[in-house]
Amino acid sequence: MTKRALISVSNKDGILEFAKELVALGYEILSTGGTKKMLQDNAVAVTAVDEVTKFPEILDGRVKTLNPMIHGGLLGKFDDVSHQAQMNEHGIEPIEIVCVNLYPFVETISKPNVTWDDAIENIDIGGPTMLRSAAKNHQYVTVIVDSNDYATVLEELKADGATTIETRRKLAAKVFRHTAAYDSYISNYLTEEEFPESLTMTYELKQNLRYGENPHQKAAFYQKRLGSDFSLAYATQLHGKELSYNNIQDGNAALQIVKEFEMPAAVAVKHMNPCGVGTGVTLEAAFDKAYEADPTSIFGGIIALNMEVDAATAEKLSHIFLEIIIAPAFSQEALDILTKKKNIRLLTIPFEQAKQDSFNVVSVEGGLLVQEPDRYGFGNADIKVVTDREPTEQEWEALQLGWSVVKHVKSNAIVVTDSQMTLGVGAGQMNRVGAAKIAFEQAGEKAKGAALASDAFFPMSDTVEAAAAAGITAIIQPGGSIKDQDSIDKANEYGIAMVFTGVRHFKH
Amino acid sequence: MTKRALISVSNKDGILEFAKELVALGYEILSTGGTKKMLQDNAVAVTAVDEVTKFPEILDGRVKTLNPMIHGGLLGKFDDVSHQAQMNEHGIEPIEIVCVNLYPFVETISKPNVTWDDAIENIDIGGPTMLRSAAKNHQYVTVIVDSNDYATVLEELKADGATTIETRRKLAAKVFRHTAAYDSYISNYLTEEEFPESLTMTYELKQNLRYGENPHQKAAFYQKRLGSDFSLAYATQLHGKELSYNNIQDGNAALQIVKEFEMPAAVAVKHMNPCGVGTGVTLEAAFDKAYEADPTSIFGGIIALNMEVDAATAEKLSHIFLEIIIAPAFSQEALDILTKKKNIRLLTIPFEQAKQDSFNVVSVEGGLLVQEPDRYGFGNADIKVVTDREPTEQEWEALQLGWSVVKHVKSNAIVVTDSQMTLGVGAGQMNRVGAAKIAFEQAGEKAKGAALASDAFFPMSDTVEAAAAAGITAIIQPGGSIKDQDSIDKANEYGIAMVFTGVRHFKH
Repeated sequence: MTKRALISVSNKDGILEFAKELVALGYEILSTGGTKKMLQDNAVAVTAVDEVTKFPEILDGRVKTLNPMIHGGLLGKFDDVSHQAQMNEHGIEPIEIVCVNLYPFVETISKPNVTWDDAIENIDIGGPTMLRSAAKNHQYVTVIVDSNDYATVLEELKADGATTIETRRKLAAKVFRHTAAYDSYISNYLTEEEFPESLTMTYELKQNLRYGENPHQKAAFYQKRLGSDFSLAYATQLHGKELSYNNIQDGNAALQIVKEFEMPAAVAVKHMNPCGVGTGVTLEAAFDKAYEADPTSIFGGIIALNMEVDAATAEKLSHIFLEIIIAPAFSQEALDILTKKKNIRLLTIPFEQAKQDSFNVVSVEGGLLVQEPDRYGFGNADIKVVTDREPTEQEWEALQLGWSVVKHVKSNAIVVTDSQMTLGVGAGQMNRVGAAKIAFEQAGEKAKGAALASDAFFPMSDTVEAAAAAGITAIIQPGGSIKDQDSIDKANEYGIAMVFTGVRHFKH
Repeated sequence: MTKRALISVSNKDGILEFAKELVALGYEILSTGGTKKMLQDNAVAVTAVDEVTKFPEILDGRVKTLNPMIHGGLLGKFDDVSHQAQMNEHGIEPIEIVCVNLYPFVETISKPNVTWDDAIENIDIGGPTMLRSAAKNHQYVTVIVDSNDYATVLEELKADGATTIETRRKLAAKVFRHTAAYDSYISNYLTEEEFPESLTMTYELKQNLRYGENPHQKAAFYQKRLGSDFSLAYATQLHGKELSYNNIQDGNAALQIVKEFEMPAAVAVKHMNPCGVGTGVTLEAAFDKAYEADPTSIFGGIIALNMEVDAATAEKLSHIFLEIIIAPAFSQEALDILTKKKNIRLLTIPFEQAKQDSFNVVSVEGGLLVQEPDRYGFGNADIKVVTDREPTEQEWEALQLGWSVVKHVKSNAIVVTDSQMTLGVGAGQMNRVGAAKIAFEQAGEKAKGAALASDAFFPMSDTVEAAAAAGITAIIQPGGSIKDQDSIDKANEYGIAMVFTGVRHFKH
């Protein structure tokens, strides 16, 4: 009996060649709609699906292949006597190969002016069903959803007249990955609830990683379609070896911080915390400040900058060991300077963000925490001066800078700043005064006249006390402790200007 | 014309009552297989699907409803003249209501001795197809995949003779969530690659949260089916208000640490870092040590214990303000003591872990990092004494304790321990000496004769120098720096015993 291959593809890449090869191998091609026309126009003999089903295509193509003459051919076990008898009785012939890809649902909903009806019409019913039938029956049927697999299948057919069970199993798994992703996109498009009873998320492999946080952990980087485009997943790498797992986390952290600033800014990150943040009238000046903030920790760090890197800045960047530099662009001169260094990675990323992630996720054992990203900035703060003294203009600048940075420091976090840079960063501490002490120690003499930002309120007045001792003159914090008044009193006592934001910025 | 409802359910909860109500409302019930039999046995009039399709069920039930007489009825637009004409021509009648749930694929693969064939046979083809057809055509068709929705649908039918478009849209979205999750489980079962080109993960809502890391961020906690069962998602809450987002992260961290110990152990966590870890011959003694480790930071913290909490331990726990206590069990006396405190949360969790998560995930903007969890412990370390002096027995105990804890501290991490408890925890620092300094300052005089554990190698000998100054006599670290010899020389100079593990434990 002639073997049969059913072909129905929305994406027609490579399909003509594939069909011709199948015909040459003696396959009868079943097809329908646009695929059938395209093959026939190119002189490939095709049997129309409705000749097989003895039932016409109806309802604007909504019902074509949903027919026992097709699905019997896909689902029958070729070596099961009773299946074969039933198939014979109903004139159902087996279909050995299925090559189907689906209506472009994601592409459709990605269009700026997509209508609801357009989206709904692009939910494929017949296609997924054929794929799933064939994949279930992969013991016998070869199913192809990805044009990259045409070559492998042809090779095996040419070599042995059949595909191997290993290949069929792999192809079947790919089909279910594809239909899972397809329905995940549809469900997310249709779902109005923020946190539905069942959450299915789908990601595409961007890059296999050498390893995860540590060499004994395997890892990969996945990209979110329809997610944020201000993302390392969209970065262009101009120079250097592949990003590592820790590079991606650090680079992501650096990008989120530098995005806070409209004036030229440079951010150095180590272990996901900013070790130095600098601003200036030029990028070079901003980098100088970021470097000066902590010349020790920046070693082996990651730098993100929010302007095109010029030669002067590149020259300075080239004098220290950095893992990565990320910027919107590099001038040719800057590139010439920096690409002399073999081990540095240079990446560009467009700063014009069009899309944002609607939520972020993190695993806990046996589960997943899902939350809205922390999108609040200085503009969302409900600023209230709570002390007798108002901050000076320069203190305001320092407070705003501190507030923009402390949000991105792991909690408990205290940041000491002047109007241009971080002077001390107290990160990841189990108690607040501990975080303050780290920041003060780093700031040293520079803490005198500087500002302090705290990601959460002061449970007691001890941090104000310590701040006064270090020479801090202005404080920004959420407020909201039952002991706020103690802190306010203490600040007044020392002539410190303190403002409350009403917004907390825990980050872990 | 009589309206028709197609019912085909694997899970038959509530279906008989639902079908009877539909009949009372004048619906004709179409059904097949076990559902049909069950309804008929209970005196509900049923039209067999094969009377509608004029085609028998074939291939052991693999092909029943994959038929244009069914899918034409599901996919035809009720108000489209051309659709109606085609349906009339082919004798296709509309199906107004579809009530389908699927072969229990997840339940099947969860069975301990599931065979491949069993799994494959439980991949439902007809069911998802009917659901998807009806959901696509939800403008007209009401589709129910969840028995919890029977009541709503009946209410609307009784009130207005039809469901609302809002309800139909919600039900359709739920269908695609269901089919997405279903195919996600199938794809993960069939997929052999660790990091396939497309990764679709599905989670079930465990709990809506009041908010996320901060009050302005919405959040929810999802549970992973087939994931780790040593999970807060499986905890039983005996007392207190709901867990918050930060509680779940902290509790998860505390559990992972306390799981490291076989002897009685207590772990206090703040901001995802351990502030105190204690071990002892009794749980009470272990808690004493955990408390003593940092009596300040434990305030408002989370405690995990690895044994049943007895009265003596409960008494001590009750004297400080704690957010949560997690343990395998509480004695009745302990419960009586602790439940007097309104604001404390008490949770039990089974410590006999049967399943582990195969990977964990974390968002970065526009993407997702996926990695194997860090499952290495002291037993995986390739321990080498690299100094002239070997650690004493007591130092070995302290080193092992430190190594078990430092793995769970945010990087850069340095932990100072004696043989029973943490003395200083330096967490989340951008440079290693900074982390060491924090740990030494906390340990104070107790650092004399204590051990130091570092999550990553020493790039320079300065940490050894600082350790010696603090009185540390034993060090455990991965080794692997090009300047290891400097650190070894320095350790020998001070008579410090140092061991290398060959394993790094970065955690961010």
